[in-house]
Amino acid sequence: MKLFFSLLVTTIISTFSQAQQKTIQERLGYAKETKLLIIHADDIGVAHAENSATFKAMQSGVVNSGSIMVPCPWFSEVVAYVKENPKADLGLHLTLTSEWKHYKWGPVTPASAVPGLINKNGFFYSSADSVVMFASPSEVEQEIRNQVKKSIQMGIDPTHLDAHMGTALSSPGFMKAYIKVGKEFNIPVMLGPQLERMFGVKIDSLVTPSMVLIDNIITAMPGDFKNTMKNYYTSVLNGLKPGLNCLLIHVAYDNDEMKAVSIDHPDWGSAWRQEDFDFFTSDACRELLKKNNIVLVTWREIKDKLYRSGQ
Amino acid sequence: MKLFFSLLVTTIISTFSQAQQKTIQERLGYAKETKLLIIHADDIGVAHAENSATFKAMQSGVVNSGSIMVPCPWFSEVVAYVKENPKADLGLHLTLTSEWKHYKWGPVTPASAVPGLINKNGFFYSSADSVVMFASPSEVEQEIRNQVKKSIQMGIDPTHLDAHMGTALSSPGFMKAYIKVGKEFNIPVMLGPQLERMFGVKIDSLVTPSMVLIDNIITAMPGDFKNTMKNYYTSVLNGLKPGLNCLLIHVAYDNDEMKAVSIDHPDWGSAWRQEDFDFFTSDACRELLKKNNIVLVTWREIKDKLYRSGQ
Repeated sequence: MKLFFSLLVTTIISTFSQAQQKTIQERLGYAKETKLLIIHADDIGVAHAENSATFKAMQSGVVNSGSIMVPCPWFSEVVAYVKENPKADLGLHLTLTSEWKHYKWGPVTPASAVPGLINKNGFFYSSADSVVMFASPSEVEQEIRNQVKKSIQMGIDPTHLDAHMGTALSSPGFMKAYIKVGKEFNIPVMLGPQLERMFGVKIDSLVTPSMVLIDNIITAMPGDFKNTMKNYYTSVLNGLKPGLNCLLIHVAYDNDEMKAVSIDHPDWGSAWRQEDFDFFTSDACRELLKKNNIVLVTWREIKDKLYRSGQ
Repeated sequence: MKLFFSLLVTTIISTFSQAQQKTIQERLGYAKETKLLIIHADDIGVAHAENSATFKAMQSGVVNSGSIMVPCPWFSEVVAYVKENPKADLGLHLTLTSEWKHYKWGPVTPASAVPGLINKNGFFYSSADSVVMFASPSEVEQEIRNQVKKSIQMGIDPTHLDAHMGTALSSPGFMKAYIKVGKEFNIPVMLGPQLERMFGVKIDSLVTPSMVLIDNIITAMPGDFKNTMKNYYTSVLNGLKPGLNCLLIHVAYDNDEMKAVSIDHPDWGSAWRQEDFDFFTSDACRELLKKNNIVLVTWREIKDKLYRSGQ
């Protein structure tokens, strides 16, 4: 009997230890050397030009995941798309800012409950810095929770949560709220070691072993745009490392609407987004994925394998 | 002394009586037979396609007035236009509905203060009927007042108030709130005898002698659109009567954005709005105005002559 317990304990410890040591690829059932990639379109819901281009790139290109801005004017168009395409891998791009010059939105929570989230005109602030300065973690938590609730109420089953402009990751208090709400609804939240470098927030103490960490969160910066997006993404795909990679892109058409949305803001602007659309619907991109043995994976697969099963 | 008082009373009565008998043309300083016309573009602020087309039609066409939807996503673009064009004749298109299928907005008042104005998703209802059914006049009054306040706070000096989809005119209680807020800010409100027919609300008891009534409020209906807008407006301009006329139009481009805004709704849709743009920027329209001796007048002129002067 003593031996049985000893064996049992050893087995439990060993299994736990293996789970800790297993790479995320292995936890998902892939070989250790697999280069897993989520090609993830941010900002869905912000504008019709963003929605229509992103849906097109998901249907005829290689974009296989994306996230939705619930407080934005074109959110209802996304709800209609989800009804027609219930298997689409769509999470929520939790939104606490309204960054464009002439096109604005505010919280889904009644303004009186989250005064620290809104400026004098009733809109979100335009920068993450202002949100950190004026909003409390409890206001952020309420607004994040209400965005999740509203999406579910309107028929969306979010496959993951992430943070528009990183705002919900910009302070330890905000990040705790972000992780807490993800746990509450059993939805994976996007987290990865780079976030420490990007936002200066230590994540170690906030992360539990069962949470999925993205090994490499990759996204273009203004300097990459100057050198053409095709060059940047070609280099990214040729240099991809084994592990779970998430490439954050922004897909829209460079048309009148999107030009007006992004007026006076060429970085992350309409031409940038058109280049993202062009690349991720091109044969060149498909060939690069194939040549580099890149395996596309979705947040839905991660959620189904590692969250719903209780692993 | 007795004679003096008698003369004074007679003079007062006579002046008051003359003011009553004077036509609005005469009160504005025009001959009695003048055909005055406001060419008024509704729905400014609803979309970039509406803003850009309307501003173009005001600058290079004959559209000389318009009204702004404060709660809509592109309101901030209108604020920027007003800063550049402070003399533009722009009032507020008081908005209590969100009628398009995939593109939504809600009140500027905190939702908790006006629960009767919002549906289960936090947006305005899509029809005036629902607003009448669920909202109280005091909620309507608060929201109207806050739209006026917000516009002023953001740098707009509204030349008049009118009612998007007639919602603020759809019940006696709503109409009282509409007139009350207009008086409070000393801004003319659009009112006219047709409103009784259109909305079934008696206005006689609500109107004071100093208020300006529009003799003819004219606007295209779905049957007119089927017969082409050019035919309709040609007929309107050829048949215009002396008095103060207000022609309500809707100006936008028939582009991707506006097609998506007005999806599944050809009436008042993007093609309709493009035809309005085309007609009111055409030489044919200018010639009709000239041929019919139509004098264009703005709400700003009405406000300056009859409201600011205290007449």
